[in-house]
Amino acid sequence: MTNLNEQESRPEVEPWIQLAELIDQGDDDRIDEFLESIPPSETARALSRLESEQRQKLLSLLDPEETVELFNDLPDEQVAHIIESLDPREAALIVDEMPGDDQADILADLGVANAEAILQAMPKEDAQIARELLQYEEDTAGGLMIVDYLAYPEDMTVAEVLEDLDVNSEKYTDYHVQYAYVTTADNKLKGVLRMRDIPLAGRGRNIGSVMVDSPLSVSVHTPLDELIGLFEESEFIGIPVTEDDGGLVGVVQRDDVMEAAGERDRDSYLKASGIVGGDELRSMPLWQRARRRLSWLTINILLNIISASVIAVYQDTLSSVIALAVFLPIISDMSGCSGNQAIAVSIRELTIGMVKPYEVIRVLGKEIGIGIINGIVLGALLGMVAFLWKGNPWLGLVVGGALAVNTVVAVCLGGSIPLILKWRNRDPALASGPILTTVTDMCGFFFALGFATVALKLLVD
Amino acid sequence: MTNLNEQESRPEVEPWIQLAELIDQGDDDRIDEFLESIPPSETARALSRLESEQRQKLLSLLDPEETVELFNDLPDEQVAHIIESLDPREAALIVDEMPGDDQADILADLGVANAEAILQAMPKEDAQIARELLQYEEDTAGGLMIVDYLAYPEDMTVAEVLEDLDVNSEKYTDYHVQYAYVTTADNKLKGVLRMRDIPLAGRGRNIGSVMVDSPLSVSVHTPLDELIGLFEESEFIGIPVTEDDGGLVGVVQRDDVMEAAGERDRDSYLKASGIVGGDELRSMPLWQRARRRLSWLTINILLNIISASVIAVYQDTLSSVIALAVFLPIISDMSGCSGNQAIAVSIRELTIGMVKPYEVIRVLGKEIGIGIINGIVLGALLGMVAFLWKGNPWLGLVVGGALAVNTVVAVCLGGSIPLILKWRNRDPALASGPILTTVTDMCGFFFALGFATVALKLLVD
Repeated sequence: MTNLNEQESRPEVEPWIQLAELIDQGDDDRIDEFLESIPPSETARALSRLESEQRQKLLSLLDPEETVELFNDLPDEQVAHIIESLDPREAALIVDEMPGDDQADILADLGVANAEAILQAMPKEDAQIARELLQYEEDTAGGLMIVDYLAYPEDMTVAEVLEDLDVNSEKYTDYHVQYAYVTTADNKLKGVLRMRDIPLAGRGRNIGSVMVDSPLSVSVHTPLDELIGLFEESEFIGIPVTEDDGGLVGVVQRDDVMEAAGERDRDSYLKASGIVGGDELRSMPLWQRARRRLSWLTINILLNIISASVIAVYQDTLSSVIALAVFLPIISDMSGCSGNQAIAVSIRELTIGMVKPYEVIRVLGKEIGIGIINGIVLGALLGMVAFLWKGNPWLGLVVGGALAVNTVVAVCLGGSIPLILKWRNRDPALASGPILTTVTDMCGFFFALGFATVALKLLVD
Repeated sequence: MTNLNEQESRPEVEPWIQLAELIDQGDDDRIDEFLESIPPSETARALSRLESEQRQKLLSLLDPEETVELFNDLPDEQVAHIIESLDPREAALIVDEMPGDDQADILADLGVANAEAILQAMPKEDAQIARELLQYEEDTAGGLMIVDYLAYPEDMTVAEVLEDLDVNSEKYTDYHVQYAYVTTADNKLKGVLRMRDIPLAGRGRNIGSVMVDSPLSVSVHTPLDELIGLFEESEFIGIPVTEDDGGLVGVVQRDDVMEAAGERDRDSYLKASGIVGGDELRSMPLWQRARRRLSWLTINILLNIISASVIAVYQDTLSSVIALAVFLPIISDMSGCSGNQAIAVSIRELTIGMVKPYEVIRVLGKEIGIGIINGIVLGALLGMVAFLWKGNPWLGLVVGGALAVNTVVAVCLGGSIPLILKWRNRDPALASGPILTTVTDMCGFFFALGFATVALKLLVD
């Protein structure tokens, strides 16, 4: 897909070696300059390759604001990992500089004890805000919103707003402001003020008469899917977020929503591959990586043992027709492949909203045809191989038939499991694979050995 | 993860039933109104559920511009599928209305014959532009750029620019213009003109003196990764794109780049699950879906047969210790799981640039530790089960030892295969899985049956 380009060949000096030298020299300005000169992905790579002492020294050279800028270039998991390694007071200074939505993400990644220690060390008021943000579910407007926005009561004049903007101009430059919100006395959202309209409006007017009335807003509980839809069908850069009582509490931004959408898709892939509990980076400690991968593998091996116990039941058949042992792993693996294709299509269709969790029947109708076609083709292929190998057509029929029937089972299960999990509020990307392979393995072994037991006389002749 | 919300319960009347009724009534305006009232994902779902005649009638009721707007709500695959079903002349009218980058995407999805028929039916000049865009690789600046942008020669005056903007205001509203580009006489990029600066600049001045000098630009060949980096570290909405000779040919936009990034991640998941040759939607024809899935499955079954042939070699051992047949699928499946975790981490790290294709040795160093830890844990578990079942410690040692050793093989292979594929310019998401499972299956069967052959006497006692 991608062409080989300069990026892909080994550079003469890897950036973390240059960075390590600059850290040794302790020159703050040159470090800043260097980090700005390399792309964000190289920054992340360089930081992950530093010794932990070097990283400590680097952070002590940067002030919290520069550190937050540096963290913008890194994956969330890496940031959490670095923050964990810091003294809570040091960490609190950095976290305090982050925008609200990033704060919540990082604190959620840290685990309760660590997060609490950092919150304790933060200024009370800021900690309070961070705690409130932590309460919202991750992929909702509440979890994605920023809380630094401009809001003015409707009876303020344009002149007063201009005055406020001027006085606080330095503070507000961080807000990337294009809109200000207009609220009633009890903080209900009343309208939106476009910044570009303000200079041209008469200074004596109330902003209530300049604002755009009854603006679009979302609730803190609005899920990511809906937010994606809203931003896709509009040109808005931000949408105001209200609490259940209608009070304005934040703004959800287009960039953050689109980023969250991408992250969710990435997560699906990682989870489906057995990388659970968050992104893994190879710069994380060995034990942590091994433990997280094992948590998934141990469940899988238990499920595997359960499904393989079907084989144990048919040991007698198997010892009479030892050739079957060659085909059992093939049937297990191929049914898994067919089922996983159906899972991937269902998860994808669920994500983009092309199918709803209650439409299991429709999905079954769409999958069963594929199961029959692909089952016949694959079964015929495998049956032919079995026949050619042993010269016994019945062996071909048993093996091919088992694969054919099990392919139908696999695509039907694969197609419907994600819908059922989603309907039961479980994460389809995480659990679909193991459930599928356990059931299809059991069925596959049962069909192959069951058919063989019935046709035993024909097979051993 | 997501909470159950209104979206997830079955609505009283599904939107495509309402849409079908409106189509029957043939009321253009009410259809428009209805489609705008539902979220984009519902539009996509509704369209996919219509009979093909109803869809035909819907498109005949909408004018090309409305159709393109409708298509914005649909996944690319669905748009391609609908366009394929149209008469080329009808399709050409619609494609001609699309922005350049979407045109290229859709035409590329259609296949050569279909695309050519549509290009033939388009106005010559527009077809020429579309053909040029089709030449660029999909995930490069050339493939992502739009070609509708504003550019003025440097010796034009501000007054002339304002005049042009006024005359063409209707045409330009589609461009979402915030910048215009300033070029030399031979179309080399010279500077950027911020639209907001124009009204305030003196009308008699040359735009060359108002523009921002030596702006950031990228080449048509700049890959997606680099574009993501550039947009992440800047606030630009668009970056100008130049051909090899330095001539300005387009503008790559932030939204398009971020969307392409998301799409690539999604594709990785689908490809790794065996959905190849593009996204599958269940609204596509059965035969097309079956054929595409089979193309992947037939390769897999052949690879499976090859690896299972290792078992055939050891038939004698197997018939002496039939219990081994129970453990072969477990070893095969668990090694696949361990290897796939390593693949997922490598693909993720490659995507975000945390690892480079030439760093195979580093990855091996990081994986081998995990392989040893997880291999010992999983091997001990499986060995214990084998021992408890048959009461023979040697069986436990053979089975557990084979899984332990093969886990190390699997994670090392899984970690390095994506890097090697990427380095060889192959798509890691597509090929890593099949290569991994074939090799690990062979090794797993070889270890289990090989160890058993060596220890045969101890196993049959």
